[in-house]
This record gives sequence, C-alpha cells and structure tokens, in this order.
Amino acid sequence: MVYEGKTKEELSALLEKERKAYEEIKLRGINLDVSRGKPAPEQLDISAELLNTPINGFSESGIDCRNYGVLDGIPEIKNLFAELLDIKPSEIFVGGNSSLNLMYDLIMKFMIFGTGEGAAPWKDAEEIKFLCPSPGYDRHFAITENFGFKMIPVTMTPQGPDMDEVERLVSSDSSIKGIWCVPMYSNPQGISYGDETVRRFAALKPAASDFRIFWDNAYFVHHLTDTPDSILNILEECKKTGREDSVFIFASTSKISFPGAGISVMASSEKNIAYLTRLIGAQTIGYDKINQLRHAAFFKSAADVHNHMKRHRDIMYPKFLIIEKSLDEGLLAEGLITYHKPNGGYFISVDTTLASAKRVVKLCLEAGLKLTPAGSSYPYHIDPNDSNIRLAPTFIGEESLSEFGELFSCAVRISSLEKLLG
Amino acid sequence: MVYEGKTKEELSALLEKERKAYEEIKLRGINLDVSRGKPAPEQLDISAELLNTPINGFSESGIDCRNYGVLDGIPEIKNLFAELLDIKPSEIFVGGNSSLNLMYDLIMKFMIFGTGEGAAPWKDAEEIKFLCPSPGYDRHFAITENFGFKMIPVTMTPQGPDMDEVERLVSSDSSIKGIWCVPMYSNPQGISYGDETVRRFAALKPAASDFRIFWDNAYFVHHLTDTPDSILNILEECKKTGREDSVFIFASTSKISFPGAGISVMASSEKNIAYLTRLIGAQTIGYDKINQLRHAAFFKSAADVHNHMKRHRDIMYPKFLIIEKSLDEGLLAEGLITYHKPNGGYFISVDTTLASAKRVVKLCLEAGLKLTPAGSSYPYHIDPNDSNIRLAPTFIGEESLSEFGELFSCAVRISSLEKLLG
Repeated sequence: MVYEGKTKEELSALLEKERKAYEEIKLRGINLDVSRGKPAPEQLDISAELLNTPINGFSESGIDCRNYGVLDGIPEIKNLFAELLDIKPSEIFVGGNSSLNLMYDLIMKFMIFGTGEGAAPWKDAEEIKFLCPSPGYDRHFAITENFGFKMIPVTMTPQGPDMDEVERLVSSDSSIKGIWCVPMYSNPQGISYGDETVRRFAALKPAASDFRIFWDNAYFVHHLTDTPDSILNILEECKKTGREDSVFIFASTSKISFPGAGISVMASSEKNIAYLTRLIGAQTIGYDKINQLRHAAFFKSAADVHNHMKRHRDIMYPKFLIIEKSLDEGLLAEGLITYHKPNGGYFISVDTTLASAKRVVKLCLEAGLKLTPAGSSYPYHIDPNDSNIRLAPTFIGEESLSEFGELFSCAVRISSLEKLLG
Repeated sequence: MVYEGKTKEELSALLEKERKAYEEIKLRGINLDVSRGKPAPEQLDISAELLNTPINGFSESGIDCRNYGVLDGIPEIKNLFAELLDIKPSEIFVGGNSSLNLMYDLIMKFMIFGTGEGAAPWKDAEEIKFLCPSPGYDRHFAITENFGFKMIPVTMTPQGPDMDEVERLVSSDSSIKGIWCVPMYSNPQGISYGDETVRRFAALKPAASDFRIFWDNAYFVHHLTDTPDSILNILEECKKTGREDSVFIFASTSKISFPGAGISVMASSEKNIAYLTRLIGAQTIGYDKINQLRHAAFFKSAADVHNHMKRHRDIMYPKFLIIEKSLDEGLLAEGLITYHKPNGGYFISVDTTLASAKRVVKLCLEAGLKLTPAGSSYPYHIDPNDSNIRLAPTFIGEESLSEFGELFSCAVRISSLEKLLG
C-alpha cells in the first residue's frame, strides 16, 4: 500500500495535499449522481420504437389484449421468456411492470396463505429469518426488513454466497424461510454464481420444509464484455434433486426496454405456478396485456433481445471502462481499494482497504457527488467493515466520469490518511 | 301474477307449452355469454387511438416516464382524476392497471402492517368481519373470502345499504373492520347511494377504530341515460365529521379505455396516502408511467373522458333497452320478476318472484346461454332467496339480445311453473 512505511509527518503532508485538492474540486460545483442503477436516457432511446410500435390490440395467438382475461400472461411473452431463460412456458407467470412487486407479493402470499396447499402461513411462525448474501440488493433487504423478518448476512465469495455457511444455517434453523439471490452479475459486486454454488443450492436440505430461494435473475442478459458469464439453470438443477418447488426465479425487461414500463416474470415448478395463479386470481383480473403485446411485437425472439442488449452494452461498457481505468491506475494501484471487474450488470462495488465508506460517501456528497449511502448493500444498513461502496456508472454521461474519478479518489485518499493518522 | 287463480291442470298445460318452446329454442344451438361485465369489442375500438397515441416518453411536467421513479403517479393523471372525482391531487395515489389489485393490496397491508402508524395488524385480530351489501360484486367477496374474513350480508335498499343495519353492526362489533361499497350504479343492481346514505357512512361510529370503508367507485362516469345519477363526495362528507381517514375511494379507466390496460387510482386522506406511499415504496419502484403518459395524452381533461363515455353509452344503452323492453313486456308484466332500471353501470339485476335462480341459470346454460352463476352476488355464493340473477348485456351484439330474451323468459316461466306445481 502506497502509505506503508511513511512517517506521521509524511502522512500529514499527504493529507494536507489531498485536502487542498478536495477544496479545489469542491469549487467546481460538481453535480453528479451515481447512486442508483438507472439506465441513461440514451439507453432508453434505443427502445424508442417500442413506445410507438403499431399494434391493433390482438395477439398472434388471437387474444383481445384490450379486454379482461388471461391472468398468467399471453403465450408470446411466455414463449419469449421461456426461450431466454430455458424454462417451460408452463413454468412461467407473467406479471406487471415490476419483478420487485412480484417478489413482494409472493412473500405477502406466503405470509397469509403459506407457500403451498396445506403449508402454514408465515404470519403464524414465531420468528422468520432470511439469509442475505452481503453485500446485496438494498431493495431486497428493504422488503424483508419491512416484514420484520430477521436478516442474517451471509458472506459473498467470488463464486457466490458462502455455501458452507448457507448449508449450515438452513439445515439447523427451521425459522430460516428464505434467501435472497442475484445469481448473475450480482448487485452490487457483479459476481456470477459458480456451477458448484448453484448445485449446492439445489441440493439444500433445509430444516424448514417451506424454505424458499428467491432467485432474482435481474441481469440475465445484461452482459458488458466479450467474455460474458453464464450460470446453471437452477430450476433444472432443482428438478434433479426433486426440489423444484423450493425456488422462484424472477426476471424482467426493466433494464432491457423501460425501467418503469417493462414486463416482469416469475418462474417455478408447475405446481407452484398453479398454486399462485389461483391466489393471484383473487388479487387481479389480469396484468397489462397491451404492454405484453407491445413487447411481443418489439421483441419477436430471444435473438432480438440479445441484439438489443448489445446496444445497451455499447453505451454502458465505455462508462465502466472509464471508471475501471481510473480505479486501476489510481486507488487500486495505490492499494487503497479492491474490486471485482464485472462482466455484466449495473454496478462496480469497491471495498476500501483503510478508508471509512461512510466518510468517503460524505466527502463526495459535500463536493456534489451523490453515492449510494454507505451500508445500503447490507441488512439494516450495517456494513460490518464500513468498507463497501457501490458505484452505478450508467446514468451519467461519459464526460462526467472523469470528474467522478478525480473526486472519488481524492475522498478515498483523505479518509484513508485520516484513518492512518488516527 | 299471471299464474294466479289458475288450476293445477292449467298450470301443467302452461308448463308443457313452455317446455316445448324451450326444446325448440335448444335446437337453435345458441351460444351466448352474458356472465361478465365486459365491454364489447366495438367499445374497445373507440379507444383504438390510445393504442398508438404518439408519445415521446416525457410528461408535460418534465418527467422521463421511461425510467424509474415517481411512485405515486405523474401529475397529469393525478390532476385528471382530481377533476373527475373532485378530490385533491395530494389525496390521490395512482396505481397499475387494476383497481381491484389496489383493494387487495390495501387489505394485505392492513393485514400485515395495520391501517396506520401504531394500529394493530389485522392478522393479529382473533376474527375479522366485513360487511357485504348484497347483492354485491363477486370479486369483492372473493377477496374477503380468500382472507378468511367472516362476511356479513347487509340488505340493499333503493338508497344503498340498509344504514340502520350498518350502523347497528359497526357500532356494536369491533371485529367488523370493513365494508364493501359500489356507491354508484352498484354491481349488480345499478343503485346509486342516496345523499342520506353517504352522510350516514361519513358519520359512522364504529366500535373498531380501524374500521375502513372500501368505496369502489367503479362506475363513476359510466352513465347510460339522459337522467344520470349523482352521489355525494364521501371524502368531503368524511372531512365534515373528521373521519376522512376511514374511507378509501377506488376508480379506474378499466371501462373507459381498456379493461386490461387502464389506469387505477386510490384516494383517501393525505395522511392515509402518505402512510401507504411509504409502505408501497417497499413493494415497487413505481407503476407504469408510460401507460399513465399515454392516457394523459389521450384524455387531456375530464371533459374528454365524459365525451368518450358518451361513445360507450351509444353502444351500450341500446342493448340495455332491448333487454329492458323484453323484460318489461314479458316477465315483468307477467309478475314473474322485479328489477331496477339502472341509469348507468354494466348490469341489470333481476329478482325472480317464484322461480329458482339456480334452476333458471341451469336451464339457460343447457340451452347455450351462459349467465353468472346464481348466488355469485352474495357472500359465500349463498343467495338466501335463490332469486337474484345478474345480466351483463354489454359484451354480446344487439342481434343476439332477442335470442337472449326469448330463452331467458322461457327459463323463468318453466322454473316458476315448476315451483307452483311443487
């Protein structure tokens, strides 16, 4: 590390220098937000045609999408996702514009009605715990926190959640009812689960018969590089172990077409899908089939989706490269951070070696750069090491990213030096 | 009644005659469905332009509707419904494509989190009861049945629910937590609540502090005649009694634009809307703003909506008139049924004088006419008098309605005569 072997005076002088640089940057009136994984407006523009794709209201399968009916989704969309996810159409339920909403509603139904016919509702359990591979997706944790579930962090490894830990916990504690997973290009680290990890998920022997895996495959086609990751099909692996009722897969077009107006799907065993379709039948007459129709007209095949994602990549990847270059040449070379270079997804997740993540985020904010609040990627917002910082480079323009790098580096250096100087 | 004073032999002869007519009708191979309140395809055609209304993704208020954000709805839609319902935009939450879904989700939230800050979750109550003005909307009752609430039928009068009954029940039983209301052109009777009824709702003194009124204003602009009904503004009336937290109003464009792809809203006190917006913030990042934008581009003002509804009326009302004429000249004149002539809504609700509703529905079905199953408009599908039959004349063509009238009349006569003959 660059500060190793330095005297206190040398460190103080370096801190002084960085603080001066920081004050200069502050004067520039920077106004940047890299806090959320939002597509840039130029990414939304590539779906512009979807806004005005001519449709007449009828699906090729002959459904009048304008009227009531067809609770589980039109065949065209089921088939599209079946092809994309390598899952049978009969294992897919098509929801509204938000897969997060599907997850929340699923937990609501488990609370009130239980995970299946004859299962006890979770609301009647004395305590419910969820495993939370951390760092993870803050909105997952917000749902389980909202429901008052006890969240247990699980260490993330480069192959996914620490499966020794997961196996030990779920096999010994019947109050553990679920686990949150983002198996591909995980939020925030961009880690994809190894084959061994997926197989061990499928082979879990939980103490709770109603333990469920929430497999949020949010970035399943969201590759960035020429060496994309791939993961095993969890539903197929679960079928091999006879545990296909234990997993729910989620995906959506939120970051394919439009974040606020895409199509979401949930996939699981036919038995689970039948059970939930019956329950959802009391909740709604059906989701928006016109939007399904529009998406089916725009994306006629999985190939269309993959081609479309290349256009996203062309806009996104250069931004990732700018940040990665800046980190590699600066903070990483100086030994002040570590990070995983993602092959896809929406984030770069940085771990500081010395610096306080909270202090870094505060310094950046005061100079006009908004980062995700430190700790957000952990249950209860508690990062035990106060070291993780999530960067979302997609929303801002390339020209702003150099400004970002300079300020961020400066903030990490200041915080690191402050730590060293006590 | 036409059969009064007739001998057994005369009645038997009449039955014989009707049965012969029925067998003849049966041979025609009728295939009609008047079971659900679905708009006809021609009604959907009048919103054809909405399918391809050109939009660029941005609201007039400057929101990028394609991206994440704006949980509670874009200002244009809030303002539109504010004008239509005479409610402040700040009292309105804009949902997805289904107001039924908003109701279901609201009850889910009351179950898990309670009706407001500090209120006990309904799941912790020993028993929950709901008042169900009957006949009423089957999908309302399906929700409360699903949750295991005990449903208590309340008699409907021509002015709305029997308020003596409602007041007596809610003031004496703290396990009564809610009431379902369709205050305008009620489903199925087409009754609009009188001013006195609305005022008494606003002045209720429930034993349960978390008693809530589910005011499903589904047909608020769905007039059929030149003498439309109007109802008092329940939220305003509740403000006068200080009980504005006790009511939730629902409306949607489902039967204005497209049943499967409209916009739904929920309205209540600002306090309730703030509480729910916070809770919904864990459920979704936001509803489909592109569809909101499309609707805002198509319906620029309340006047646009009212003009649009006139076009629906032009298609719907002739169908109602055909059925009413047939009923008036036949079964009503014969004293075999009674019914309320609705000024709006989607249904004609017939009460048989003698006939068994179950038997009528069965006879019709066997001859090719699908009616809503008898009892559907009552909690647990139990019509205590077995007399109520809901007719939904909108979906089928005018040319089919005479066939409908002939068969339906024949079935009611057969069932009535069977009753008289024991």
